[in-house]
Amino acid sequence: MNLLLLQDSDFLPDGTVQMTGRRAQHAREVLRAEPGETLRVGRLGGLVGTGEVLENTPGLLRLRVSLTEPPPPRAGVDLLLAIPRPKALKRVLPAVAQLGVDRVVLVNAARVEKSYFDSKVLAPGFVEELLLQGLEQARDTRLPEVLIRERFRPFVEDELDAVFGTQALRLLPHPPALQPLHRVGVQEAPRVVLAVGPDGGWVPFEAELLEAHGFRPFSLGPRILRVETAVPVLLGQLALLREDTARTA
Amino acid sequence: MNLLLLQDSDFLPDGTVQMTGRRAQHAREVLRAEPGETLRVGRLGGLVGTGEVLENTPGLLRLRVSLTEPPPPRAGVDLLLAIPRPKALKRVLPAVAQLGVDRVVLVNAARVEKSYFDSKVLAPGFVEELLLQGLEQARDTRLPEVLIRERFRPFVEDELDAVFGTQALRLLPHPPALQPLHRVGVQEAPRVVLAVGPDGGWVPFEAELLEAHGFRPFSLGPRILRVETAVPVLLGQLALLREDTARTA
Repeated sequence: MNLLLLQDSDFLPDGTVQMTGRRAQHAREVLRAEPGETLRVGRLGGLVGTGEVLENTPGLLRLRVSLTEPPPPRAGVDLLLAIPRPKALKRVLPAVAQLGVDRVVLVNAARVEKSYFDSKVLAPGFVEELLLQGLEQARDTRLPEVLIRERFRPFVEDELDAVFGTQALRLLPHPPALQPLHRVGVQEAPRVVLAVGPDGGWVPFEAELLEAHGFRPFSLGPRILRVETAVPVLLGQLALLREDTARTA
Repeated sequence: MNLLLLQDSDFLPDGTVQMTGRRAQHAREVLRAEPGETLRVGRLGGLVGTGEVLENTPGLLRLRVSLTEPPPPRAGVDLLLAIPRPKALKRVLPAVAQLGVDRVVLVNAARVEKSYFDSKVLAPGFVEELLLQGLEQARDTRLPEVLIRERFRPFVEDELDAVFGTQALRLLPHPPALQPLHRVGVQEAPRVVLAVGPDGGWVPFEAELLEAHGFRPFSLGPRILRVETAVPVLLGQLALLREDTARTA
């Protein structure tokens, strides 16, 4: 935990902050923060800064906080992600939050097993917990929005524009494609939406429907990656290409 | 499993190939391969190709193989990796094999917990199993070499050049650095060695010793990533930068 995330309900009327539970325990047992010391804090959805420890007793942490800095810049990327197997989702969601993705739509697909929908990993509380872990790691405060859609085609046909907007560059990592990622216009795009299929890939109908809705296929190279590896690889590559643009712009 | 990996001991004198155990079970229960069908196969350390199913009975798979193509090109990257917690190592090793890393030195560091050395994840059989999973996923046949070193300083001072060579560009993702990855000469380097610290980072002594041995610090940006996220992000970025060179060269 590189940042203690504060929720609105932690703030007391006098402006100090009070926490119980997991965060208080972490501050006491791992950080071993003594009164007078400062911890790095951030307000969920808001600024980051420091918190001076006023009290750190078993189960109760009280801080005087000063929130002055913006969190890290956003990636400018949204994901359309075929629901991965639960074990992979537990790895992907913290990574997605760490890397500053704004929105994730978890969608059904032909190669998604029906049982995944019943997984506890998809419960709202569990999803949020995984995302918060990612924010605490990356010192970010902005929680990605996660939507779950049980029907692929209606989502693509009826909701795509409303959820992702019409100005973003839509990209589809797809083995038959030849164009590499750095040749599909990522550098100039205001935002990017990345459609990552399940292990085994999108079936042809799905890939064609996505292409018909503006998703440009590109090649990830000859190696076939697991979803939990492909997502950080692609987000890292997008960050590099887009940072390069920002720096040279 | 996108590739059935064959070991030398699977080859019979008549040139056919015979497997039992996990791979035979996978071919029967998951791939449901009937006699006459072909499977994608590769010989560990060698070529990839196809295998025609001659027999697929419970517990026994027999193939006539044709190995004609090279596996995917190497990444040209080695890793010096502070031993991650066992859960993270179980994620990092398959990713490293998927992404075509040649050599991984797992090294002790000040922020590595001593208990990690006793983890079953570090047992040679377990390490190889995780790497094989990565190869089967990425359709590769070349097993990364994994070395474990319990003492950081003697490794850096006495073994570094022998293990990684002296021609590779040595890189250190290190928060105080300002240079981004695309400005440290990766594009022109024959090979790259990447020194990834533990969660919490290298301590100053370690970072200084690495810098004194030619490791150039660079910035990963304002987000602090978990090791299991940082490794695929960095390998993806290196692949992009080095592929771009290859294509424009």
